[in-house]
Amino acid sequence: MDLRSTPLLTDFYQLNMLQAYLEHSMNKTAVFEFFVRQLPPQRSFLVAAGLEQVLEYLQVLRFSQGELEWLAERGDFSKDFLDYLAAFHFTGDVHAMAEGTLFFAQEPILRVTAPLMEAQLVETRIINILHFQSMIASKAARMVLAAPGKTLVDFGLRRAHGAEAGLLAARASYLVGFSGTATLAAQKIYGIPTYGTMAHSFIQAFVNEEDAFAAFARSRPRNVILLIDTYDTEGAAEKIVALAPRLSAEGIHIHGVRIDSGDIIAQSQQVRRILDVGGLESVTIFVSGGLDERDLRAAAKAGAPISGFGIGTALTTSSDAPALDCAYKLQEYAGLPRRKRSPGKETLPGRKQVWRRYAVGERMTGDIISLEDDRQEGVPLLDCVMRQGSRLGPHATLETARAHAASELRRLPPALRELEPAAPYPVTISDTLRTLATAFDQHLTGPRGASK
Amino acid sequence: MDLRSTPLLTDFYQLNMLQAYLEHSMNKTAVFEFFVRQLPPQRSFLVAAGLEQVLEYLQVLRFSQGELEWLAERGDFSKDFLDYLAAFHFTGDVHAMAEGTLFFAQEPILRVTAPLMEAQLVETRIINILHFQSMIASKAARMVLAAPGKTLVDFGLRRAHGAEAGLLAARASYLVGFSGTATLAAQKIYGIPTYGTMAHSFIQAFVNEEDAFAAFARSRPRNVILLIDTYDTEGAAEKIVALAPRLSAEGIHIHGVRIDSGDIIAQSQQVRRILDVGGLESVTIFVSGGLDERDLRAAAKAGAPISGFGIGTALTTSSDAPALDCAYKLQEYAGLPRRKRSPGKETLPGRKQVWRRYAVGERMTGDIISLEDDRQEGVPLLDCVMRQGSRLGPHATLETARAHAASELRRLPPALRELEPAAPYPVTISDTLRTLATAFDQHLTGPRGASK
Repeated sequence: MDLRSTPLLTDFYQLNMLQAYLEHSMNKTAVFEFFVRQLPPQRSFLVAAGLEQVLEYLQVLRFSQGELEWLAERGDFSKDFLDYLAAFHFTGDVHAMAEGTLFFAQEPILRVTAPLMEAQLVETRIINILHFQSMIASKAARMVLAAPGKTLVDFGLRRAHGAEAGLLAARASYLVGFSGTATLAAQKIYGIPTYGTMAHSFIQAFVNEEDAFAAFARSRPRNVILLIDTYDTEGAAEKIVALAPRLSAEGIHIHGVRIDSGDIIAQSQQVRRILDVGGLESVTIFVSGGLDERDLRAAAKAGAPISGFGIGTALTTSSDAPALDCAYKLQEYAGLPRRKRSPGKETLPGRKQVWRRYAVGERMTGDIISLEDDRQEGVPLLDCVMRQGSRLGPHATLETARAHAASELRRLPPALRELEPAAPYPVTISDTLRTLATAFDQHLTGPRGASK
Repeated sequence: MDLRSTPLLTDFYQLNMLQAYLEHSMNKTAVFEFFVRQLPPQRSFLVAAGLEQVLEYLQVLRFSQGELEWLAERGDFSKDFLDYLAAFHFTGDVHAMAEGTLFFAQEPILRVTAPLMEAQLVETRIINILHFQSMIASKAARMVLAAPGKTLVDFGLRRAHGAEAGLLAARASYLVGFSGTATLAAQKIYGIPTYGTMAHSFIQAFVNEEDAFAAFARSRPRNVILLIDTYDTEGAAEKIVALAPRLSAEGIHIHGVRIDSGDIIAQSQQVRRILDVGGLESVTIFVSGGLDERDLRAAAKAGAPISGFGIGTALTTSSDAPALDCAYKLQEYAGLPRRKRSPGKETLPGRKQVWRRYAVGERMTGDIISLEDDRQEGVPLLDCVMRQGSRLGPHATLETARAHAASELRRLPPALRELEPAAPYPVTISDTLRTLATAFDQHLTGPRGASK
């Protein structure tokens, strides 16, 4: 069983509902939309990511013989239903914002239009994929904005929540402008550049720190970066100064040093002085160790002599906002709009489009959420990317998505580029959409009032 | 490539270091220990989990032909090193605390004793596995303590960070006392009981809410739980009262209702009254929707008439503490203790054991961390579970681990059972261990001072 594509990676209730839908012949066209209800207080914008993995999932989703047998053994699903599952494949349409597109609360970034049973079954995994990558891309974008021109590298596999989170965090952060990742599998699967130096254990395994530095440089002479904070950072920087000429005589150039603890601004300045006095002006300083975007911004403001940052936990767990308040909701069924009215979780009915307006110079100025066929001023953000289960056009590559994200970040209003949230970006609901929501409520209130 | 067991799910630097170790014949016995440096401020204790997945990983870890070819194509690894990787398998020993054991800061819960290259290569994935499951088990244990006697169900796959996080959160929460999960794959893989009702979309897809209730109950007549907050919770409760006798005549019993939004205490009380007045005293109330352990505690204190809780995001992302400050550190190499002294990240050298003392009545009273061979009062918590790459004894089943966790939680001191952290549990460092750390520092300071 491939965990990433098995239809059993879903909530049990999906199958309960599907059997009930089948028995009641409820399989007309349904429209579900994925959106974030509200932004975390620490976010001014979000970045759409994960569409590629959603489309791959929809394309390969099948019940295997072993899975069908296991479901049959449970004893609580009907023969007819198991036959339906045996033939299951996704035949619907998908409209979505391109990966890398910026988005805001209430804006659908993906719409599934499919027979109800298909659109329902895929709910859990679609949320699971889009939520995580959009959350990480949004967090990573703050880091990119906080440290312009710096090399940012994902170091967070070990603290990511499991295998897939580690892999996809590398992808989502690269998508918004990270230079690369430490995760080898992300290079093999997605072609993301890998970066890697050494661990403290390498230094510790040698009796002398100097021997460890020299051994590493000789064995891995390309792009040598030496970790200098195992015992005493300034002492180690002095050892680097002593070692560099000997290595240089062998044709080995020390590219940089890494500091993984302590006050990164003060340490980088002290180390810079030692290196410069020692004639190692070209040796760069790379910093890691529990950093988040505020550390990056502080280092940038202080003009700390740091060329790059390795970022772990804060990135791969989105530690200040480890979840988004997102949902995948039924907005239309059998041609009629639908709405949920649970307190605090009300939805906007119908198939929607998001229109974005730009000022001269390409700055984003505001969005309108409307019904799909209600043309508004601006550029529509949702496009059809899958029709009747088949992808439309060539796949967007990760590099294309990365270029798109960079373009999106350039068009972000200045206030939204700050780490502290500013006045929210203006998103309005079109009149026709509001009218539809009100009409739906009146329709609903009528019979319910009467039935009491 | 199976993402969960590929050796490429690691940091690039592991392979850099390994090639350097190989070239310098540095492959003597190394001892690494996994521990948490300090507890998050919101935690009074942690629960060890994930050992089973670590052992499975160590047993199957091999480089495939395709992976070796891909590494060769990179062009930066030597032929000798690639030959080493082709023959790689784990031949070391593992000592560990049993899954479900409570632990505290600085206490190793797993020790790897292996040739340096093997012990180094497995670092990233071992941390990735133990960190996540221990973090989730620790969060879930707070929920179990906050809602004694209630049915707790993991509803959090959709907001978990990817596929594996969803699956393993189901496992870790069941391990510490959750009743089950909504995640079907967790039932197939780990035998965890599944729970599932219906989504709002099911209600919305029908024109009338009553029709949706009746259709669901007839199609899924076992353990019927109906979701009543889609439009108006009290109105829906009245519809349940009207519907129950009709279903009862067909032999279908409504087991419960679910409320997924709003003030759960007030709503549960209102719904309870409506159900009781309608003669449905036996119908239970199940609650979900953005809950954490504080909501559970508040509901318990208020005596809210709730029989069970579905818990999502707060559980599967450990939202108030989505990472633990954990590490896997070299403590001994080639028979000599090793120590890292980076500011704020100092380690205790040598192979260690944790001893736990109990008062009469089995309450835990304090732990001592000592060197392995320095026998202390109390029960040693680390046992050998793998020798020379082979597991010792029969595998601990998930049910065994669950029973152990329940026993551990019963022995927790009363103050640590509260959600607000109390005075920390007493953990002391043995004299010999302190002496060794000091001796190591003096040894280190000597030559370094001289080399300046």
